[in-house]
Amino acid sequence: MTSQTARRLTGVVPPVCTPLTAEGDVDVSSLERLVDFLLDGGVDGLFTLGSTSEVAFLTDRQRAVAVETVVTRVAGRVPVLAGVIDMTTPRVVEHAVEAVKLGCDGVVVTAPFYTRTHPVEIERHFRVTAERVGSAIYAYDLPVSVHNKLNGGMLLDLAAEGMLAGLKDSSGDDGGLRRLILAREERGSEVDDFSILTGAELTVDLALSMGADGVVPGLGNVDPVGYATLYRLCREENWAAARTEQARLVRLMGIVDVAPEDRMGRGSSALGAFKAALHLRGVIECARTAEPQIPLNDTEIDAVRQHLDTAGLL
Amino acid sequence: MTSQTARRLTGVVPPVCTPLTAEGDVDVSSLERLVDFLLDGGVDGLFTLGSTSEVAFLTDRQRAVAVETVVTRVAGRVPVLAGVIDMTTPRVVEHAVEAVKLGCDGVVVTAPFYTRTHPVEIERHFRVTAERVGSAIYAYDLPVSVHNKLNGGMLLDLAAEGMLAGLKDSSGDDGGLRRLILAREERGSEVDDFSILTGAELTVDLALSMGADGVVPGLGNVDPVGYATLYRLCREENWAAARTEQARLVRLMGIVDVAPEDRMGRGSSALGAFKAALHLRGVIECARTAEPQIPLNDTEIDAVRQHLDTAGLL
Amino acid sequence: MTSQTARRLTGVVPPVCTPLTAEGDVDVSSLERLVDFLLDGGVDGLFTLGSTSEVAFLTDRQRAVAVETVVTRVAGRVPVLAGVIDMTTPRVVEHAVEAVKLGCDGVVVTAPFYTRTHPVEIERHFRVTAERVGSAIYAYDLPVSVHNKLNGGMLLDLAAEGMLAGLKDSSGDDGGLRRLILAREERGSEVDDFSILTGAELTVDLALSMGADGVVPGLGNVDPVGYATLYRLCREENWAAARTEQARLVRLMGIVDVAPEDRMGRGSSALGAFKAALHLRGVIECARTAEPQIPLNDTEIDAVRQHLDTAGLL
Amino acid sequence: MTSQTARRLTGVVPPVCTPLTAEGDVDVSSLERLVDFLLDGGVDGLFTLGSTSEVAFLTDRQRAVAVETVVTRVAGRVPVLAGVIDMTTPRVVEHAVEAVKLGCDGVVVTAPFYTRTHPVEIERHFRVTAERVGSAIYAYDLPVSVHNKLNGGMLLDLAAEGMLAGLKDSSGDDGGLRRLILAREERGSEVDDFSILTGAELTVDLALSMGADGVVPGLGNVDPVGYATLYRLCREENWAAARTEQARLVRLMGIVDVAPEDRMGRGSSALGAFKAALHLRGVIECARTAEPQIPLNDTEIDAVRQHLDTAGLL
Repeated sequence: MTSQTARRLTGVVPPVCTPLTAEGDVDVSSLERLVDFLLDGGVDGLFTLGSTSEVAFLTDRQRAVAVETVVTRVAGRVPVLAGVIDMTTPRVVEHAVEAVKLGCDGVVVTAPFYTRTHPVEIERHFRVTAERVGSAIYAYDLPVSVHNKLNGGMLLDLAAEGMLAGLKDSSGDDGGLRRLILAREERGSEVDDFSILTGAELTVDLALSMGADGVVPGLGNVDPVGYATLYRLCREENWAAARTEQARLVRLMGIVDVAPEDRMGRGSSALGAFKAALHLRGVIECARTAEPQIPLNDTEIDAVRQHLDTAGLL
Repeated sequence: MTSQTARRLTGVVPPVCTPLTAEGDVDVSSLERLVDFLLDGGVDGLFTLGSTSEVAFLTDRQRAVAVETVVTRVAGRVPVLAGVIDMTTPRVVEHAVEAVKLGCDGVVVTAPFYTRTHPVEIERHFRVTAERVGSAIYAYDLPVSVHNKLNGGMLLDLAAEGMLAGLKDSSGDDGGLRRLILAREERGSEVDDFSILTGAELTVDLALSMGADGVVPGLGNVDPVGYATLYRLCREENWAAARTEQARLVRLMGIVDVAPEDRMGRGSSALGAFKAALHLRGVIECARTAEPQIPLNDTEIDAVRQHLDTAGLL
Repeated sequence: MTSQTARRLTGVVPPVCTPLTAEGDVDVSSLERLVDFLLDGGVDGLFTLGSTSEVAFLTDRQRAVAVETVVTRVAGRVPVLAGVIDMTTPRVVEHAVEAVKLGCDGVVVTAPFYTRTHPVEIERHFRVTAERVGSAIYAYDLPVSVHNKLNGGMLLDLAAEGMLAGLKDSSGDDGGLRRLILAREERGSEVDDFSILTGAELTVDLALSMGADGVVPGLGNVDPVGYATLYRLCREENWAAARTEQARLVRLMGIVDVAPEDRMGRGSSALGAFKAALHLRGVIECARTAEPQIPLNDTEIDAVRQHLDTAGLL
Repeated sequence: MTSQTARRLTGVVPPVCTPLTAEGDVDVSSLERLVDFLLDGGVDGLFTLGSTSEVAFLTDRQRAVAVETVVTRVAGRVPVLAGVIDMTTPRVVEHAVEAVKLGCDGVVVTAPFYTRTHPVEIERHFRVTAERVGSAIYAYDLPVSVHNKLNGGMLLDLAAEGMLAGLKDSSGDDGGLRRLILAREERGSEVDDFSILTGAELTVDLALSMGADGVVPGLGNVDPVGYATLYRLCREENWAAARTEQARLVRLMGIVDVAPEDRMGRGSSALGAFKAALHLRGVIECARTAEPQIPLNDTEIDAVRQHLDTAGLL
């Protein structure tokens, strides 16, 4: 690792679930327990207010409670990023200023959504946000939600100008990810501290073998030790053992499909399963997800339990 | 008109532009002048915080200023609706409660977006929102932004339960709109006060001839008299004259394409043109749009001027 | 009607279903009966090998049999168009040359599909096809199948160069259709014989009131008299009676939804219903659709029968 | 390798470009030279009539010439697959029967396209095709063209029934690919001869490390030795060297973007670049692509030359 890359964010940075009470408020003590559980599991950073945190469902007040709780509990032991997810620049800037004030080490920003946005407007969005926020900005590439794919060349241009600290890539486009990683290498020192993290929790070994710096795994809430182990094996270039650990995690990921597709959306199913697993593992008090998500039923929760059992997590 | 239909919202209900100062704040006095301009033009209601109001770009504080300004200036002369546009139920409910507190007569709600949402979750979203808000809820069908088409049967079911007061249909699916209007007729009194408004400003005569109750035309900001005239002609079943007036408005709508597609998105182009036209007509002080939209340049503003001239609006 | 518009294709031009035998061959005598049924019903032209003809499912030999049967049976009484639906220019040209050889009066051509196609390539596709075929070419705008929307300006440019005889618009974008019709009017004589037909069978009165020249209604197979009546009423500007007839046809269109969405695609359901209706009305011998479409079951066929009964067609 | 897996198709199986003469006919002697070039380069099989072969642009006669030329020239030295790309079952079956008659070892079949197709219809499509063709069928997952993603569970079910010999996965969904590979392993002997090939030419090392059996790289036309080397290095689990070779090929892949996006589609650009490279390397006589693709200009061809030079291929 060169001196430049030392400044990159690396490792396992799970998007922290936001436990709710039965009434739908943020359950602060469960969230504190979850932070401890993740840090004890060996993760390298925390990403609060990501998609897995139900950021899209939390009110501004709830978002602030979540950030404050995580930042306070972490107390500087690892970096904390916060998602500042909203439709356009003025609203994103407002969230970002708040998150920085609450002590985050960086904010995570998607392209505009809901609006019909042109590539030059996407670039302008990141540029204006960076200028107004004055803190580390991570671009969040999430076409399934934002209906746009970020352009790799634009990201590196912004990085070279000091506008972007990194990328969380949840585009699922591994060929594009590799092109970006090689392009970063070719552009050299001007972008060398640009951190590239993958959100693809089923192919972490692949992303790391290509040169990604870290991973933001939703499933890392349920099994932080697994992802920390996987990350370490990859760094040691022990690819065979990494493959085996990754395969175990892929099987565990089966929990996101315990509910049938005609009963609920895949978001409800995944977030419900993560929270059910955290409840079954004794980390959080209540598995409730926010409206209008459909809750898992008892049969589905049993299926989650069986998955945890198979994975050796109960 | 039967006694039941008397309770429907009808007529021309423009989505009110939100004038901004050069610094990007809501320009209250320009907004007051715009309200006067629209009411003087003969419109039947106002829809603040719609897409044309740049709702996606306004901060919560700016949204509140816009609603308060419009409600106060209208002072009960016509109904005022407010868009409560956000990603999911808890955030939408919060906006809606605020809008009702500020005096709106109804709120306009899309399906969830950014999240991956199942039809049963969309229904639940409207149901929970209606229960918590306790005011007239209008569903907003806008697939270009929300990436989902609302199901007509679901809308009528919710209407029959008293959960929905109406629909703003910006789906562009006129066949579907006709099916919905005929289905409303067939279901009779239980849904008879469900108001159906079209957002399709180029085919107002068609929607009204099918039985729609009104129109929410973005272009109505620029030419409220034109839309009020068009509405009256349709109600008089003077279809030939309506067609001629509608054709004039279609040509005026050419202002949304004065900027080339490789320079900016169609949103920037349309909102920039509406505001440039309002500025050229002396209604608002500054044509600025919110970030990250690209502003029109002088050539493009000249093209807007020429359109206004041709349409007899200068 | 001016002398120029006299050259336009106008009126009701149904896309003729292709009856199949139980073994899946083209049922020539049923197809002949269907041609007679449609001409007796008062239609103004026939469109063979459209989507409703299951063109995507027919082999080249079956396509030739269908064209030949229709052309021969019509014997010049009305114009016959043929769809020449395939992925790209060389394949489309081959189909088109064959269709012209078999006696069609024009061919109907979509943009390329399956390939990723740029707007300049779409224009080149129509241009090369027109040059090689040397017969009347109608552009077919069908985004639901082709995943591209044809540009109105490009269509009129090609029309002005004599490359296109008309458009079948199944885009469902009535605002765009109106813009095209007004643009045709503005460009005057150079495009005055460019015929604009709508495929939107639920809004025929609207399209005709805007200035469309005719309609290509799949449902016209089932009720040609209905569509001929509707067309006549519109031409007489008897809009109230037209609206009533159109509403009856919208209700009849309910047959396309007799099968539930979890049992088959909307294509299977619609084509199965059209053929079941033609069988129930005694026009064709067998209601079979081509593979891999799912056949309607007895309950669903009963529902079709009930719709026909309600519409006065049994 | 167990005895069962010995029956899987493995290795590098490039989709063979189809050289054309200046007049647009299949250039048989160039195609023969290309076959020799690929076999000399060390590939393990050939896939004729894939997307890279411009299958969507070739007439049926041209398709037959291409298959016959490849099969004859290969003369049994490696397996030859043929794409049988068309809209629906009857048309696909016809192509497949022809390809088998011409001596192919297997045919490659997408889900239906152009039509709106339900999952149960997709399964029926593969089932009926397999029953009628009676030869090895490979499913082709290509959402960018077909606008549908194949379901992994369905593929394995069909494999267990002997209906499918394998999959060419060009979906770009590496997480899904990994799930499929693990599911194949779990289902054991009943699906053990089901071959899984990736079309993702930028991440071959990753796919092979996950357990894929081979790769179908379009870029393999230009550098078969590179892909054969990469495959060998992966099989030897020499991941570091594999990564370096893959990185070289990723850089070479830059040829597909030598033409700007406002001048042509990405298909024209990629196929034009592959053919230009083959021409520059002296393998084929003419770099022409089929209509309506835009040809590369001299500047763009120079850029291809430079890429080849950098990659050590001139």
